[in-house]
Amino acid sequence: MTSSKDQEFTLEQKKKTSSSWFKELRDMICAEFELIELELGGDAKFSRTKWDRASGGGGEMSVMRGEVFEKVGVNISTVYGEFPEVLAKEMPGAEKDVNFWASGISLVAHMKSPKVPSVHMNTRMIVTNKLWFGGGADLTPTFEVAEDTADFHNAFKIACDKYNPEFYPKYKKECDQYFFIKHRNQPRGVGGIFYDYFNTGDWSSDMDYTKDVGLAFLDIFPKLVRRNYELSWSEDDKERQLAKRALYAEFNLVYDRGTKFGFLTGGNPEAILMSLPPLCAWR
Amino acid sequence: MTSSKDQEFTLEQKKKTSSSWFKELRDMICAEFELIELELGGDAKFSRTKWDRASGGGGEMSVMRGEVFEKVGVNISTVYGEFPEVLAKEMPGAEKDVNFWASGISLVAHMKSPKVPSVHMNTRMIVTNKLWFGGGADLTPTFEVAEDTADFHNAFKIACDKYNPEFYPKYKKECDQYFFIKHRNQPRGVGGIFYDYFNTGDWSSDMDYTKDVGLAFLDIFPKLVRRNYELSWSEDDKERQLAKRALYAEFNLVYDRGTKFGFLTGGNPEAILMSLPPLCAWR
Repeated sequence: MTSSKDQEFTLEQKKKTSSSWFKELRDMICAEFELIELELGGDAKFSRTKWDRASGGGGEMSVMRGEVFEKVGVNISTVYGEFPEVLAKEMPGAEKDVNFWASGISLVAHMKSPKVPSVHMNTRMIVTNKLWFGGGADLTPTFEVAEDTADFHNAFKIACDKYNPEFYPKYKKECDQYFFIKHRNQPRGVGGIFYDYFNTGDWSSDMDYTKDVGLAFLDIFPKLVRRNYELSWSEDDKERQLAKRALYAEFNLVYDRGTKFGFLTGGNPEAILMSLPPLCAWR
Repeated sequence: MTSSKDQEFTLEQKKKTSSSWFKELRDMICAEFELIELELGGDAKFSRTKWDRASGGGGEMSVMRGEVFEKVGVNISTVYGEFPEVLAKEMPGAEKDVNFWASGISLVAHMKSPKVPSVHMNTRMIVTNKLWFGGGADLTPTFEVAEDTADFHNAFKIACDKYNPEFYPKYKKECDQYFFIKHRNQPRGVGGIFYDYFNTGDWSSDMDYTKDVGLAFLDIFPKLVRRNYELSWSEDDKERQLAKRALYAEFNLVYDRGTKFGFLTGGNPEAILMSLPPLCAWR
């Protein structure tokens, strides 16, 4: 799993490069989303809150509540220390040495208009005595628009195909499997890509792939927002959105691995649960 | 754990008596809640939906959406069959024989007025090659009123003290421990009682205790509703209620044993998740 190319970078360089990228991507995304607010809504801005993790590291939440984005959270964090025992058992490379380092960006946007899809994007690098990337992005429309779904999928297909033609079909399938609400027997949304334990043996290329996934998101999602935001919608449409969001909350609280990871590693509950919808309904 | 008195009843009699009681209690509660709607609100009535469990048994949901009760669900179910492996490991008496039988009533009320507390009540009898009762009731006000909390606790203290003076302090403590939202480091509400694996060796007395817990609920909760319903409240108060309800949803989806039991035994997700709030907010 390691190549000569992989050894051009020290572990410290890998950590620094990845965490700097997540911050840079956060800045680009926040700037673009604020621009969308300016164009289509009001003058909402992200507000930022730093938090420290008692046993090592911390993060920064960025939240915006606007006219287009009813609530969007863009979190970055870099945490390290020892895995709690229950997690160590599940984590590759943590069976013997429970020390870990993890850095990532995580974003969930709940939109005011029911005609604009909700979206989730996350990329991360995790180090135990192994090292891997994980992440993906997936779309959750209240009312599916075939063209939007196709364009969203295609953006990530292009990002994946640059590296390996097997990635896209594999990670699309993993996304469908992961974001499935078992007790409802239905998918959370219309999918996207999802990958974990990603390490091709070429760290530099894996880092580039991680960047391209983030950039694909930054390219396609704003297009979907601008395309749909000015469509009219009714109170019934909004009610349908609130019901769809309730299923989103069910998934995140019952199944989501990131939520569980956050709770078990003593993360900040405000940051972990920023993904939850501003308003939702189980009528 | 068995006495001569315990042997006066066959297992079939115990099953029939308990499941009949849960149905009778359901009918009394629904009648009382409909009366409250008539007195204070409109003419909302419960609507009932039966459901069948593919692998044995089923249940009946009763839901009312009214002017006083924004959403209240009163479910009864009697299910049986084989525990899935993951549950069998956790269930007393199911290590060798995975057959089980379970019957119970479960109620959650979310009130329109933020000045009226939410409430949960559940009692059940479970049979593996052991037999036990479980249940309790707990109160979740948005704005705590000391007198309401005291009266609610006292109603269950009286029910408990009839049987054993040790029950109330023990089950009150178990309630506080169980209904605690670990990741928020705060309780779900102001408590009540919670007991599980309850079997004193005298089935008839245990059944009577189960009845008295239900009757205590039927006595005290309507008093709290009538006492508080006509208090005025603001939009800010409602917003506080929506935030409190979000924590309620977090608890039920992340920690609740009944929810997990329901999902894992192939229960009806509509019935299992009837406890979730009609509207809630993670702003």
